[in-house]
Amino acid sequence: TVDPAAAPGMDGKWMAWNEFVDLEKGDDGIWEATLDLEPEVYMYNYYVDGVKTMDIHNPHAVRDVTDQLSKLLYDGEGSHHYMINEVPHGTVKKVWYPSPTLEMDARLMTVYTPPGYETSEENYPVLYLLHGGGGDEEAWPDLGHAPQIMDNLIAEGKITPMIVVMANGNFNQISALNLKESVDGNAMVNSMAYGQYVTSVKEDIIPYIESNYRVIADREHRAVTGLSMGGIQTQKLALNYPETFNYYGVMSMGIIKEDQFGIPADLLKDLTTEKIEALRDSEPELYWIACGNEDFLFPSVNNMREIYDSYDFDYIYRESGGGHTWTNWRIYLTEFSQMIFK
Amino acid sequence: TVDPAAAPGMDGKWMAWNEFVDLEKGDDGIWEATLDLEPEVYMYNYYVDGVKTMDIHNPHAVRDVTDQLSKLLYDGEGSHHYMINEVPHGTVKKVWYPSPTLEMDARLMTVYTPPGYETSEENYPVLYLLHGGGGDEEAWPDLGHAPQIMDNLIAEGKITPMIVVMANGNFNQISALNLKESVDGNAMVNSMAYGQYVTSVKEDIIPYIESNYRVIADREHRAVTGLSMGGIQTQKLALNYPETFNYYGVMSMGIIKEDQFGIPADLLKDLTTEKIEALRDSEPELYWIACGNEDFLFPSVNNMREIYDSYDFDYIYRESGGGHTWTNWRIYLTEFSQMIFK
Repeated sequence: TVDPAAAPGMDGKWMAWNEFVDLEKGDDGIWEATLDLEPEVYMYNYYVDGVKTMDIHNPHAVRDVTDQLSKLLYDGEGSHHYMINEVPHGTVKKVWYPSPTLEMDARLMTVYTPPGYETSEENYPVLYLLHGGGGDEEAWPDLGHAPQIMDNLIAEGKITPMIVVMANGNFNQISALNLKESVDGNAMVNSMAYGQYVTSVKEDIIPYIESNYRVIADREHRAVTGLSMGGIQTQKLALNYPETFNYYGVMSMGIIKEDQFGIPADLLKDLTTEKIEALRDSEPELYWIACGNEDFLFPSVNNMREIYDSYDFDYIYRESGGGHTWTNWRIYLTEFSQMIFK
Repeated sequence: TVDPAAAPGMDGKWMAWNEFVDLEKGDDGIWEATLDLEPEVYMYNYYVDGVKTMDIHNPHAVRDVTDQLSKLLYDGEGSHHYMINEVPHGTVKKVWYPSPTLEMDARLMTVYTPPGYETSEENYPVLYLLHGGGGDEEAWPDLGHAPQIMDNLIAEGKITPMIVVMANGNFNQISALNLKESVDGNAMVNSMAYGQYVTSVKEDIIPYIESNYRVIADREHRAVTGLSMGGIQTQKLALNYPETFNYYGVMSMGIIKEDQFGIPADLLKDLTTEKIEALRDSEPELYWIACGNEDFLFPSVNNMREIYDSYDFDYIYRESGGGHTWTNWRIYLTEFSQMIFK
């Protein structure tokens, strides 16, 4: 958590979460710090006399739930896939869809269609890309740079052109456009009961996508991956609907036991022998687990591996450095998207 | 212009541009002001010790060129059409299109398609909606609330369902996503030579829209309106391509004479007798001029009316209160959209 008393400084989220850099006042009255950074997409705030604020001169601002952050785009090796490069671009659509299972007439989602979608007659596979507990339909496009990652990897021939569906996993919100003001930054992070949204993915979102877009509507052409809360939702989709997806990616999340991390152990009720065996016997092409070894949820991944090992359920385990960060999630999307629909 | 020395205060843009409200520190240490506001969409900043900053606790932030602003959504009579209401919603698409006349492979625009576009087989009329000198393809959707205005007026049966094209009129930018950092807030406002973009609307954008969307591709089903710089572009489209559009709206802009307002009098060269008479004789269904009588460009509208009157060119003149503000432009869009495609 942030300690505003550490100001003046810069909360850079420079790889580690909430790292502070002190600024020093020069003779010219300008506060400065020199950072030795790698190419990356960075989010940061200034703290002035203990009060968090923006870099008002940087036009690249981004919202992370109810937090406002400034964004630094440092192009180079390791970050070049996150930039808008001179390659063909897909279209990003803000689409309202009905959600009968949540009893809402309209919820907003972001849909990426690959370059050429509008003019080709091809049908495409679909990746369902789920955000974390604090996110919404703008998280993966704005913080995760998913459209840029897709554009660039498609242009290099490294991934199969696909549709990417980025809906809003907080089932109490109709959209990020309707956020309520929040003094503590947590007003919207209150849908940690995952079951309802998972049902909505299966009953509302997939049917909507498959009847409104040119998709290949079978298991072999559906993938799902999500981070943190989205990693729980991915597991619940796997355990409850094992014939729906052929590719799963669980990012920065494992299995939370009672009283761990202050997060509801909602997944435990789905971890029955019957459901785990049904998932195993459905033989998905890929079950990928990725986590940073500095992530506060890293122990939950060990829980998960122990349980799946005890059932001889095959998965691929990818351990990275770093923590619970968009730096890792952008890397994971880059890797996961290259393993699916091949 | 802003006087940061007036701080601490609040730069509310409360109807008038850059109006300041002083905050007073209460016994509890919280700085407060009480404002008597009408329902409206407001943009504001805080000034703390002379330094402009955001309301960091308000998740509704918005970018106006290189300015970061907080947004207050005050729903009520007069602003209800700007809100996301329980009505059918159109889709907002971020679309890359080729721009051969500007020698760019890809530029970004925002396209609104009305509710039902995806599932109907109907063809639609198209409104080309142009922003001001500081804007980009996010100005009308984010500051102008154009998608909400369209959704709500369509739901009430007050306008004909239409496609709305909001491209980037600053021809030196490929998109708002590629903004450069700017300390003076003006780095991007440097494409005040309008001719190139006007050619691009005619040669690049209209053909792209008409070959990629289900439109009615004739003059009777094309409208164009723009504010400020977009008002010059609208006039140039009218004068140079008089058979292309049937409906014109010139918002908060008239005809600038040499040395007026510090803005290039670029339009003068198009104001030949031949071009004005060709426009007049093309008998457009609507030529609408709207301006606030507190607008710094108000005198230019008088210039315009004098010139057009001398040619017996029919137009409708709408004078409002207020100045060069999004408050007026949202009102003008609400009114103009109800007068077209009828």
